Amino acid sequence: MSDASRAVVLREFHSPLVLERAEVPEPEPGAVVARVSYGGVCGTDIHLHHGHLPMPTPVVLGHEAVGRVWRLGEGVGADLLGAPLREGDWIAWASSIPCGRCYWCLVEGERTLCEQRRVYGINQRFDDWPHLSGGWADFIYLQPGTAIVRLPEGVTPEQVISLGCAGPTVVHGVLHIAEVRFGDVVIVQGSGPVGMAAAMYSRLSGASKVILVGGPQNRLELASELGVADVYVDIFETTDPEERVQRVLGETERGRGADLVIECTGAPDSVVEGMEMTRRNGRYLVLGQYTDRGAVPINPHVITRKQLTVLGSWAFAEAHHVEYIQSLPHLSRWFDLPRLLTPYPLEDANRALADVEAGRVMKAVLATG
Amino acid sequence: MSDASRAVVLREFHSPLVLERAEVPEPEPGAVVARVSYGGVCGTDIHLHHGHLPMPTPVVLGHEAVGRVWRLGEGVGADLLGAPLREGDWIAWASSIPCGRCYWCLVEGERTLCEQRRVYGINQRFDDWPHLSGGWADFIYLQPGTAIVRLPEGVTPEQVISLGCAGPTVVHGVLHIAEVRFGDVVIVQGSGPVGMAAAMYSRLSGASKVILVGGPQNRLELASELGVADVYVDIFETTDPEERVQRVLGETERGRGADLVIECTGAPDSVVEGMEMTRRNGRYLVLGQYTDRGAVPINPHVITRKQLTVLGSWAFAEAHHVEYIQSLPHLSRWFDLPRLLTPYPLEDANRALADVEAGRVMKAVLATG
Amino acid sequence: MSDASRAVVLREFHSPLVLERAEVPEPEPGAVVARVSYGGVCGTDIHLHHGHLPMPTPVVLGHEAVGRVWRLGEGVGADLLGAPLREGDWIAWASSIPCGRCYWCLVEGERTLCEQRRVYGINQRFDDWPHLSGGWADFIYLQPGTAIVRLPEGVTPEQVISLGCAGPTVVHGVLHIAEVRFGDVVIVQGSGPVGMAAAMYSRLSGASKVILVGGPQNRLELASELGVADVYVDIFETTDPEERVQRVLGETERGRGADLVIECTGAPDSVVEGMEMTRRNGRYLVLGQYTDRGAVPINPHVITRKQLTVLGSWAFAEAHHVEYIQSLPHLSRWFDLPRLLTPYPLEDANRALADVEAGRVMKAVLATG
Amino acid sequence: MSDASRAVVLREFHSPLVLERAEVPEPEPGAVVARVSYGGVCGTDIHLHHGHLPMPTPVVLGHEAVGRVWRLGEGVGADLLGAPLREGDWIAWASSIPCGRCYWCLVEGERTLCEQRRVYGINQRFDDWPHLSGGWADFIYLQPGTAIVRLPEGVTPEQVISLGCAGPTVVHGVLHIAEVRFGDVVIVQGSGPVGMAAAMYSRLSGASKVILVGGPQNRLELASELGVADVYVDIFETTDPEERVQRVLGETERGRGADLVIECTGAPDSVVEGMEMTRRNGRYLVLGQYTDRGAVPINPHVITRKQLTVLGSWAFAEAHHVEYIQSLPHLSRWFDLPRLLTPYPLEDANRALADVEAGRVMKAVLATG
Repeated sequence: MSDASRAVVLREFHSPLVLERAEVPEPEPGAVVARVSYGGVCGTDIHLHHGHLPMPTPVVLGHEAVGRVWRLGEGVGADLLGAPLREGDWIAWASSIPCGRCYWCLVEGERTLCEQRRVYGINQRFDDWPHLSGGWADFIYLQPGTAIVRLPEGVTPEQVISLGCAGPTVVHGVLHIAEVRFGDVVIVQGSGPVGMAAAMYSRLSGASKVILVGGPQNRLELASELGVADVYVDIFETTDPEERVQRVLGETERGRGADLVIECTGAPDSVVEGMEMTRRNGRYLVLGQYTDRGAVPINPHVITRKQLTVLGSWAFAEAHHVEYIQSLPHLSRWFDLPRLLTPYPLEDANRALADVEAGRVMKAVLATG
Repeated sequence: MSDASRAVVLREFHSPLVLERAEVPEPEPGAVVARVSYGGVCGTDIHLHHGHLPMPTPVVLGHEAVGRVWRLGEGVGADLLGAPLREGDWIAWASSIPCGRCYWCLVEGERTLCEQRRVYGINQRFDDWPHLSGGWADFIYLQPGTAIVRLPEGVTPEQVISLGCAGPTVVHGVLHIAEVRFGDVVIVQGSGPVGMAAAMYSRLSGASKVILVGGPQNRLELASELGVADVYVDIFETTDPEERVQRVLGETERGRGADLVIECTGAPDSVVEGMEMTRRNGRYLVLGQYTDRGAVPINPHVITRKQLTVLGSWAFAEAHHVEYIQSLPHLSRWFDLPRLLTPYPLEDANRALADVEAGRVMKAVLATG
Repeated sequence: MSDASRAVVLREFHSPLVLERAEVPEPEPGAVVARVSYGGVCGTDIHLHHGHLPMPTPVVLGHEAVGRVWRLGEGVGADLLGAPLREGDWIAWASSIPCGRCYWCLVEGERTLCEQRRVYGINQRFDDWPHLSGGWADFIYLQPGTAIVRLPEGVTPEQVISLGCAGPTVVHGVLHIAEVRFGDVVIVQGSGPVGMAAAMYSRLSGASKVILVGGPQNRLELASELGVADVYVDIFETTDPEERVQRVLGETERGRGADLVIECTGAPDSVVEGMEMTRRNGRYLVLGQYTDRGAVPINPHVITRKQLTVLGSWAFAEAHHVEYIQSLPHLSRWFDLPRLLTPYPLEDANRALADVEAGRVMKAVLATG
Repeated sequence: MSDASRAVVLREFHSPLVLERAEVPEPEPGAVVARVSYGGVCGTDIHLHHGHLPMPTPVVLGHEAVGRVWRLGEGVGADLLGAPLREGDWIAWASSIPCGRCYWCLVEGERTLCEQRRVYGINQRFDDWPHLSGGWADFIYLQPGTAIVRLPEGVTPEQVISLGCAGPTVVHGVLHIAEVRFGDVVIVQGSGPVGMAAAMYSRLSGASKVILVGGPQNRLELASELGVADVYVDIFETTDPEERVQRVLGETERGRGADLVIECTGAPDSVVEGMEMTRRNGRYLVLGQYTDRGAVPINPHVITRKQLTVLGSWAFAEAHHVEYIQSLPHLSRWFDLPRLLTPYPLEDANRALADVEAGRVMKAVLATG
């Protein structure tokens, strides 16, 4: 059969990823096989490669992807929202499948906290059927229960992959947990894809001012060209944290601090700094601390005295992915999303990974085309 | 004139408080002079005495008090809620008077954050007219703008003073900011008056289980006699924090942790411990960190991973004081509040302060009677 | 085989229900067969019997029930919360199974609005396998996906059935949508099971006063014996709506009206009356308008002028059912729930239905024992 | 003295307004005298003129206005937000002064519900000192306690007056009570100033689609030129309510209805229609029912079945006025606000009133210049 797929496989932590081949399975009832167009490279992939997060091996990497319907399993006639699905349709899918039956899924209603979540590109073994369970491949097998959405009219695959999982992560954290309000002064710490998405959604939610604190310069320049913020503060230029705080406070009404500060750096220290930038009775969203990089000295008196609301947000559920996809026409009206992208051929996955780790690109994607 | 008042004055930090005398002024229009029955001794008074908080001297201490109307100034015919006021009526009053015109009072609507707040017993000088601006005295001069409430039918002054400012502090933090919900498993860290109030209000708000973590033993025994919690954990018995966390988690559904954890200790370390006791997607209220005792190592990854909501709450506004007073009939139906009290004569203020500092009593009050 | 089951079947609207027999099927993987102890009779059953709601026939009635595990299908080792399940265990289950994949289930997260919900006792045909899909029978077949909870230690089946589906309906509407707050003055309109549950949950959530407006006298007497409210207003005694409003307002602080009014009558007129009883800036929960009884004259000016929040709440999802079951130890500490019950043998289903319709009993249940 | 002021006085309901003169008082401490530039004509002024609302006479009309500082009373050195105030500065002020001491102001924290509010242009008598208490005059006397804001850099008086009191009314209702969320499909019923403001704020808060249902054609054309909505439905063209509902539903995702519907018509019937346009679990804001035009048939079953949240919002407090003024730079970046205006000289107040009543203009203003 001609339906074979290349796949970028993580076999051993730290070792180079290997391009392998696997047969494309026929979909069981309820499943869908997709032809992948782009697989995104995310900061988390760096951590996975270094073995910083619990995962089995071997695994086809790639929890972010977009593509077209190749084969529809029996009984799959429509997407999650009821739009008809046909072979060839452009689709996107949530990266994880919560169990749907546990305390977190059903009672707490926070599917993102489900402990049985199957996650494409992370915890589905390559040596188990259906093998192709990651986005860095020509094909991916979407199991029954995957939340699939047909791309809305006019939305391109480049737009979908431009923010990768940062998009739904920010929909969850910024829109649903921190809830930007019209008129808010918002500070975003970090200028990677999560920071970019946080700034964009804040702006379109009515923030009266967005201050982006990040670096290096090339990222801030790109951010500025896209126009995601009103003020850009380069942490490589203003390296003293206290000076940075003063600089940023000077941009807020009477030096009071921001209504909402969004941490998108992953660096524990920035939490201390960000709390200083938040006004009394303000909100601080800890959105980027995905890996455990240890404790830092934090003064809890600040939380009481300033009457802060400090919020954590973990990953995203299907609903947030759907909202992300549906918001792309709106987002694209204001921001030229594909400018964030740097494409690599599938065989250059190791180079793409290295470029992301070095901060040389904003958003690397593997293009199968 | 016979209307002279004794007053306990803080003249120098660390030095013994001095019992002095002052003439009782006639009330200006809008003001009220009250005959104080009880002035509460609060942990904050210890800090004030040690000069840990910014304040002028000399000051008549006492930000918690209850008494009766002695003289009504012109135009004062009713309390805040519209109940008629007459000489001899039992009344309570909020300890502070926000300016009512600033950003915090009027735009943000958080009067507790007003920077111009006048606070009885803390920032009103004894050597300025009207001199009697603290509750540790026979009389107090209640300035125009003070939020006065006539005690509801059947409420005694002993009930009012039993929780002191811990009452409205908890109304603000626990009921308005953390919002206990029916069915919540609640952990309260700390068994002083704030911890007691937090446990009581949680219980009456429908908490399915209240776990009180505190000490020393005499306080837990008193708590247990009043029945404020379901489980009591003695920190002097279980001294290892990790063991404490395990012990407490064992009391929660499947070891998941509490829906809401309320910090009422003032010790920065307990914040780290409390976050461990909170379940994923749970709420952690930092209620007790009123003084700056420095930073402690906190891992912000916990906030993201557990998707925590960490809330600060600062002091209280008039609304919370009114709610506290109005809740006393309800609270008293379930808890024998006056059992918390240890009364001292006004001249023994220094002894009362020492006993509070040593943790020998739950709630010391100066009785003028 | 001896495993046959009696079942009360609705074959034709308006005609008497018929007691039939069916074989008890073996459970497929993921399914559970339960031995029913009690099936509750709900006001909705009256409407079903009259053909007022869309449903197929024939159907085994009974959307409320409680029983014990008879047979466990393959793969069923634990309940929804992870408690192990064995044959003979007491269990309860949510009456409906949402699809889990649609906009309402997954994006909006309101499973109670799922349009594909399968509902026991209402839309599962008796003539289709597995036949036994209603609670008015000796056995019920619980399909894979049913939200099953093992009864908590000490909870009796009589307690579970005492409030029937009124329990989770009120958990949804009163606790999750209207959110009773500590100190609220709450008015409950209606004294059937929904009104009883609304009063109970309000009380245990910290309502400072609960006013129950209902009738007839026997129901109010029972409510009073259980102690669900502070004040009882008999609508058969005070028949003039305006007089009723005045009577009730007189029970609220300065005649201001209630913080929260909960409609549990199903009579459209009571919505007009209830809005009059709500204070400015208060909440009005329209909980009981399950059937379409037409429009009534309502003045929308009242909503603007009083700045009301008017809330609807539809049915309940699995989460609310779980919360109901978990709250039973708490509820039972304060209220003698089984006193609400009037048991009938299965063969007297028609009489039970008639007694409920006539308001002769508070809560009729069919006991299979 | 040359400081005399013209003032448009309502002496008798239904009779023509009269242009009178009064001396401009010197400001007492805390007060400010302003030179009015524009006084807005609002739909409420029509109702006042017809005696539909309780008010004394004679009164200088004009609760909306903008102007410059003429004289500063002693002690007035800054505006509400702390910006320094000098003679000649452009300022705006909230139309009402709540008492600040009652249950509504202090306990409930809803100053807009204060029963003692003094309102410029409505309940301050012309024959009482300081006489000039309305905005339809050359000068207005701003009493101590008035919430004054200096116009932000670059904001023009024409921008301020363009939405009049519709601006802060919508800030209150739409932003604070209904809370537009990013991605919401919003339907606005009514195309007067309130509807225009509702559409604008919804758009800038991230609404994915705004559908404006109103008329007549000239208003919709103006709305369209400003670009406040995505879709315009003319009620004079589609006159059948059911047809209108279908037309509008057709513009929403799968005909589900809008996430948020905002009523800005004042016509009771539109509430029925608007509830039909709201999706299940959606929000319906009753914002425009300021006058009592009687009851209309509403089916409360719709509220339960659709699980609606129906919200009322009354007027606005100082905070909302401040937010309105602060949002003008943002609003003006997207909308050419002054295009809404039709200016009239002060002496043509009766003509302006008539034009507003006839719907001939969007926003009439009296220009004193």
